[in-house]
Amino acid sequence: MEAFRCNPVRGFLLDITGVLYNSSPNSLGRAIPGSIEAVNRLYSESRVRFVSNESSESRYDLAKKLVKLGFNLKEEHIFTPAPIAVRYLKQHALRPYLLVHQGALKEFADVVGEEPNCVLMGDAEETFSYDTMNQAFRVLAKLEDPLIVTVGFGKFYQRIDGPCLDVGGFAKALQYATDARIITIGKPAESFFMTAIDDMGLSKEDVVMIGDDIVSDIGGAMNVGIRAVQLRTGKWRCSVVLMDFLISLAA
Amino acid sequence: MEAFRCNPVRGFLLDITGVLYNSSPNSLGRAIPGSIEAVNRLYSESRVRFVSNESSESRYDLAKKLVKLGFNLKEEHIFTPAPIAVRYLKQHALRPYLLVHQGALKEFADVVGEEPNCVLMGDAEETFSYDTMNQAFRVLAKLEDPLIVTVGFGKFYQRIDGPCLDVGGFAKALQYATDARIITIGKPAESFFMTAIDDMGLSKEDVVMIGDDIVSDIGGAMNVGIRAVQLRTGKWRCSVVLMDFLISLAA
Repeated sequence: MEAFRCNPVRGFLLDITGVLYNSSPNSLGRAIPGSIEAVNRLYSESRVRFVSNESSESRYDLAKKLVKLGFNLKEEHIFTPAPIAVRYLKQHALRPYLLVHQGALKEFADVVGEEPNCVLMGDAEETFSYDTMNQAFRVLAKLEDPLIVTVGFGKFYQRIDGPCLDVGGFAKALQYATDARIITIGKPAESFFMTAIDDMGLSKEDVVMIGDDIVSDIGGAMNVGIRAVQLRTGKWRCSVVLMDFLISLAA
Repeated sequence: MEAFRCNPVRGFLLDITGVLYNSSPNSLGRAIPGSIEAVNRLYSESRVRFVSNESSESRYDLAKKLVKLGFNLKEEHIFTPAPIAVRYLKQHALRPYLLVHQGALKEFADVVGEEPNCVLMGDAEETFSYDTMNQAFRVLAKLEDPLIVTVGFGKFYQRIDGPCLDVGGFAKALQYATDARIITIGKPAESFFMTAIDDMGLSKEDVVMIGDDIVSDIGGAMNVGIRAVQLRTGKWRCSVVLMDFLISLAA
């Protein structure tokens, strides 16, 4: 814990899926043991923001679910990439073909339109079929400068029933077939971390990112100079949990 | 046509899909204009073998389909990778989880078994769903040295209704999530070309590969020292057809 002595920690960025809870396709999911208490303790001692690449539901629905699971947190402290993606699309006059989860369609209702000029992909789960992938491919194949905008670029994430393919691989599939450029909104993009850090009124040096994903959370944070701790929960099947980490920090 | 003067051409390797005909999901597909006459002429003047990465049906079914479309060719002159893949799997004690087209399942009936220790992928089309991709991912995620065996590694191919994603991208997706090794059977592997060339009793220097795919057909052949000609049919929407090429060769 040497690093934490050099510079006082004044705020925490927490990943949600795999750190606070594990998701489920048919139910609320399940809180990871100790994480509810850990969040309470962090809130009482420090500033906290939640940075998630979750794109299968709106921030409102995600906050509601976490509160139902027993977490005491504020919706406005949750940062998800969908609203940032919508802003990006509008700024660049992009009309995406959507490969997103059913529950996320309404978040993008403002930007879809005739003759798509890019593909937008999130953690679409069942929406990734051969037919939808092929439709997205045909959109890209017609473009002079094919562009894929992804919400996150994860390899996989943990669901209660087991690990599940995330958006990254499906984006690689379309890129291989079309040589498309890829732009990623959300972790590991620096701007995404900074939005949450700015909101706490802190700077990069003041915060620690806590997550379970080596690419999006840990690599993403460390690449831009944010300290990061990888938990062994979520996709790592529970060996260091958030509460244990906090105890070790206090010791 | 300078290259053809240096070394006499004594045999031809022909790709099938996109060169002889364009496939269709619901029907026989359609012969490319001039290709039936071109095949007849090649057979009358030279040795010919057909090298296809087609894995959605058996060689027998493919030959039957081509004869129905009007081609005068022999089943034993068609080389497809499925039987070679089966041999490879047996030699290496591999029991694959299958991600192949419904019509190809029977070709692999001999090698599937309990506790798969690799994934085998072909041009599965509708069989590529989130659920099947995720099952394949979970097989790979459990292995110490995850291995994907692919039948071909194409980017896309032409169907009558438009271009369609081929196996390559889907293999890339699973590789991104699992860091699996990939072994490709079929074009562009040298051994696959050589099987057909040996069958003609010729050597690499005597033959010309004719195809529409820059990676599998043209790159694959040229990388191992086989002359190759890219047709602008198939995925390239018909500008140089097989017949035109033969006329130019005779001129």
